Amino acid sequence: MQVAVIGANGGIGRELVPRLADAGHDPIGIVRDESQFDAIRERGGEPRYGDLKGEFAPALEGVDAVVFTAGSGGDTGWDKTLLIDLWGARRSIDACVDGDVDRYVMISAYNASEPLAEPEALAPYRVAKRCADDYLEQAPLDATILRPTTLTDEEGTGRVSAAFEYHDDGGPDISRADVAQTVVACLDDEATVGETIRLFGGDTPIEQAIHPGD
Amino acid sequence: MQVAVIGANGGIGRELVPRLADAGHDPIGIVRDESQFDAIRERGGEPRYGDLKGEFAPALEGVDAVVFTAGSGGDTGWDKTLLIDLWGARRSIDACVDGDVDRYVMISAYNASEPLAEPEALAPYRVAKRCADDYLEQAPLDATILRPTTLTDEEGTGRVSAAFEYHDDGGPDISRADVAQTVVACLDDEATVGETIRLFGGDTPIEQAIHPGD
Repeated sequence: MQVAVIGANGGIGRELVPRLADAGHDPIGIVRDESQFDAIRERGGEPRYGDLKGEFAPALEGVDAVVFTAGSGGDTGWDKTLLIDLWGARRSIDACVDGDVDRYVMISAYNASEPLAEPEALAPYRVAKRCADDYLEQAPLDATILRPTTLTDEEGTGRVSAAFEYHDDGGPDISRADVAQTVVACLDDEATVGETIRLFGGDTPIEQAIHPGD
Repeated sequence: MQVAVIGANGGIGRELVPRLADAGHDPIGIVRDESQFDAIRERGGEPRYGDLKGEFAPALEGVDAVVFTAGSGGDTGWDKTLLIDLWGARRSIDACVDGDVDRYVMISAYNASEPLAEPEALAPYRVAKRCADDYLEQAPLDATILRPTTLTDEEGTGRVSAAFEYHDDGGPDISRADVAQTVVACLDDEATVGETIRLFGGDTPIEQAIHPGD
């Protein structure tokens, strides 16, 4: 599949592009800054220009699936959270619908289902992610929403813990590498379409953890 | 009708409470800060405690209609825009649905239909307002969405210009007093249910301007 990664130069995006190539997909890295093109090529991706606040739709030409992992994570201003994590996500969803791209994997956020939960400092971020998720759920796309807990830069283990129902128990941190590998696994497992999956560090092989009912 | 005003101590709210009383309604001013209770009473309203980030639903006991005019207008941090203008609005809509309050009037923002339009500085604010509006449109409520252009503190004139279709022509500024009077007129005109109305300063008597088809 041609898989477009929005946010290809971010923490998860950098882990995802080579893993998509390893899995036999053609990764396309969509970035706004052309100085990042070489970095995407070095990781095995085809770079394309796309601006979530400007011209974006042409970047999806020929694409089969989109992964959205752009955004601030709370490190930039909240205005960017509104413009990228929320409105940019909505624009990318609209572009998929208009461009006949059916498959969409959203990297959402832990507790987006409960934006006002602790810690309070993350509440505005979770509002944006929740509203983007809600928009995706109502769109006519084959969507999977992943809500990883706190991210680390540890090595990938190939193992995670996945929860299909909300509970407030939480769980261990998860590496960006394992989140990226989970995206690859979701793209290869049709049963994850329509699912919202909370992700933690854990001991279950990823392919097994994200398969509903297992 | 018992009409609850969320944001009763804000610029439009202060104009709205006495106008609701003058029109024969029972205005209820919902605020989070009990030190504002006396100010609401002085304008003819019944003050009630409600916190859009905390306990809110009990404030709607016995209420027939809600007017949402809380929010920053871009003067506070964007985190507040996410928490109040967007998530607070969604929570108030949910509370209406759960509490059998059928009528809802949203004070939205000019160009919420086109968040990325100029001026760019307002784009994050319009994203939040647009997403709240979309949520309201899909809720099982009798809703009217008002999208006034730039607000002034001029005296009310009783006259406005209303547009039911989007166009980018813009129009004259409008006073908060005339927006408040437009809310009263909408509550008295069932034909405004389901409408999204852009508001400018103008020469048409309010009741006529906001009646669809006129």
